[in-house]
Amino acid sequence: MRAMPTSSPYAMVSVDEACAAILVRAAPLGTERVSILVAAGRVLAADVIADGPLPPGPRSAVDGYAVRAADRGDRALLGEELIAGPEHSIDVGAGQAVRIMTGAPMPTGADAVVMVEDTAESDRHVQIHLEATLGSNVHRPGLDIETGQLVVEAGAVIGPSEIGLLATIGVADVPVYRRPRVAILATGDELVEPWETPPPGCIRDSNRYALMAAVSEAGADVAWQGIARDRDDDLTSKVQNALAAADVLITSGGVSMGTRDLIKPLLEHLGTVHFGRVNFKPGKPLTFATVGDKRVFGLPGFPVSSLVTFEVFVRAAILTMAGRRDVRRPRIEVELDHELRPDPSRLEYHRAVVGWRDGRLTARSTGAQGSSRLLSMRGANALLVLRASDQVLPAGTRVTALLTGALQ
Amino acid sequence: MRAMPTSSPYAMVSVDEACAAILVRAAPLGTERVSILVAAGRVLAADVIADGPLPPGPRSAVDGYAVRAADRGDRALLGEELIAGPEHSIDVGAGQAVRIMTGAPMPTGADAVVMVEDTAESDRHVQIHLEATLGSNVHRPGLDIETGQLVVEAGAVIGPSEIGLLATIGVADVPVYRRPRVAILATGDELVEPWETPPPGCIRDSNRYALMAAVSEAGADVAWQGIARDRDDDLTSKVQNALAAADVLITSGGVSMGTRDLIKPLLEHLGTVHFGRVNFKPGKPLTFATVGDKRVFGLPGFPVSSLVTFEVFVRAAILTMAGRRDVRRPRIEVELDHELRPDPSRLEYHRAVVGWRDGRLTARSTGAQGSSRLLSMRGANALLVLRASDQVLPAGTRVTALLTGALQ
Repeated sequence: MRAMPTSSPYAMVSVDEACAAILVRAAPLGTERVSILVAAGRVLAADVIADGPLPPGPRSAVDGYAVRAADRGDRALLGEELIAGPEHSIDVGAGQAVRIMTGAPMPTGADAVVMVEDTAESDRHVQIHLEATLGSNVHRPGLDIETGQLVVEAGAVIGPSEIGLLATIGVADVPVYRRPRVAILATGDELVEPWETPPPGCIRDSNRYALMAAVSEAGADVAWQGIARDRDDDLTSKVQNALAAADVLITSGGVSMGTRDLIKPLLEHLGTVHFGRVNFKPGKPLTFATVGDKRVFGLPGFPVSSLVTFEVFVRAAILTMAGRRDVRRPRIEVELDHELRPDPSRLEYHRAVVGWRDGRLTARSTGAQGSSRLLSMRGANALLVLRASDQVLPAGTRVTALLTGALQ
Repeated sequence: MRAMPTSSPYAMVSVDEACAAILVRAAPLGTERVSILVAAGRVLAADVIADGPLPPGPRSAVDGYAVRAADRGDRALLGEELIAGPEHSIDVGAGQAVRIMTGAPMPTGADAVVMVEDTAESDRHVQIHLEATLGSNVHRPGLDIETGQLVVEAGAVIGPSEIGLLATIGVADVPVYRRPRVAILATGDELVEPWETPPPGCIRDSNRYALMAAVSEAGADVAWQGIARDRDDDLTSKVQNALAAADVLITSGGVSMGTRDLIKPLLEHLGTVHFGRVNFKPGKPLTFATVGDKRVFGLPGFPVSSLVTFEVFVRAAILTMAGRRDVRRPRIEVELDHELRPDPSRLEYHRAVVGWRDGRLTARSTGAQGSSRLLSMRGANALLVLRASDQVLPAGTRVTALLTGALQ
């Protein structure tokens, strides 16, 4: 029987050291062009500059009458009605007015618009109750966007307003960063599928499906997924298949210290293990390696450790590879709603619900934080960063929170 | 020539009145069953209860040796090694120990696990450096989930942890609310497609594409989209096509007071207009109607008005129809980074960037807030709710912010 290791050969690194080791090995993967019709959620790969002004010419900002601002008194009404749409060849002379609708190009001669609410129309004349000043209620060319203006910058995530801006300046397709392809490999003889009844001693695989959802939420594609059994041959062939299919491999389980922990030796054999232990709870055995230009994250097998290490270590790498610039979660200070007992020996990321109550940001724990208790993730929108300590933190203590979702 | 209306026949309603009129007419649309493999982002339509405990039996929480806690001194080592996976028929007797890996079922006889770090193994014996107490390092049945426990509640949005929980208790498909089908109809003779060069006086349609992205982001399906020209026949037939295809119709443009504002009369003809003006900036002409069981939102044509009225009025209706319980954006108080001039006559939703700086939540305007200046949406993660006032708000003033994105 192989000897049972009693200590890890891997140095314990800090969370900051681990993040740095990961991010220094993450970079955008490349670019492709896509139509703005399918660009939502993608990351723009080049600055987009306006090649003309918007609006292109002067335009009425309201429904009303286009006039000469210098005139006074009633105006003689021209028989036209100007609407948004192809330009008319109308000329507004001294003492004249023409009906104009919001968004319509200004007619020549006119230099202001009187709002319809400030007028009365009768018998081919318009009474003006509130005279216009030069340019009033007219949108000048370039008011919204000037020629040469930076409209959307490289690295921006494309959302509804970016799509609107790109459409309005005539940029119908854009260069975006390629979405990272991620493979997810669960490991363990004990795993069965969610729709199967586990034999005694076995459990259903939940990590793989939770990680698939987390990967998609981070904007990457799940390019490969499967289960490897606890045998060198099966694990080796599946890791190789996964690496061939993806930019990033995430494994689940098989990274603690037992004799059946096969992941780290395999990664040492195939590539370079950059760290194999992090001074962090939940998820101390987290492992990070590179195999050629592929990144491999060996996540612990407990469900909470799996999702929390994904959140804290893997997500930022995926976002960086997807071209995002700002890959960290917002970090704020919150007040504890109740006392909390930190872990005595390791930095803990404690799942919590953060909200705005009585004029303050407060945090409430999701309860027992065991690594196997996935219910501690339910409803959590924050990770409280608790330094190792023997001291209970009383209610009202201010602690740092990483916001992983919307405030509750 | 048709008379030019100088005032709206519609009463001005408040933002709260408008929201109430919309939400009282929004309800979940119905349910369907989906696999958890495609359930991410969906809303659960029924409580999910665990039908057994998790773990199902006692399980080792660490790598180490299963022992009897009452024993003392060295243990005789059994020749097996217990791993997570199908159960073994091992019995641990007095003075005996057996290797056990994290997650493995506890053997009969044993009632505690000693961590491998607290042991030394040699010559078929194990020295115990730190004795176990009853149950130590053992996960009891039901530790993570008890039989009958509510695991995920109806109305919850299904994300990675929910998928993990459902998978682990063997719920492979779930009832979810149906995604609302939304139709988007832009209106106007002036509109051309983003990939076309607009003739003089025309502009590219940006609202329709921005709204399509906003609808998808809100979790609904774009079931129909198109442009109607400013003629009764074209508008009528397209509105009817859109209503046939969708649960919700969003129109863009054609709702202010000019003679070409055809939307409101058509909606009056087809159904019931519940309001046609809101005391709100940007987007006063916002219109809400029902036609049979379909909801229709007539959004103003300016790009900013379009996206802000979607955010403030339409999104909550779509989320409600999608089964979400908590449909409002988080509402917090922030300090202004700089002075701001509110609108003198209307409640204003001012686009801003809210972040955590120097221990406080502060807000910075995105600049000029004209309804046509879509750049005022770029980078915004909040809408500041500014009451109508002639008074400048100095830097440091506390105002209410609706958070529409992550803190910056």
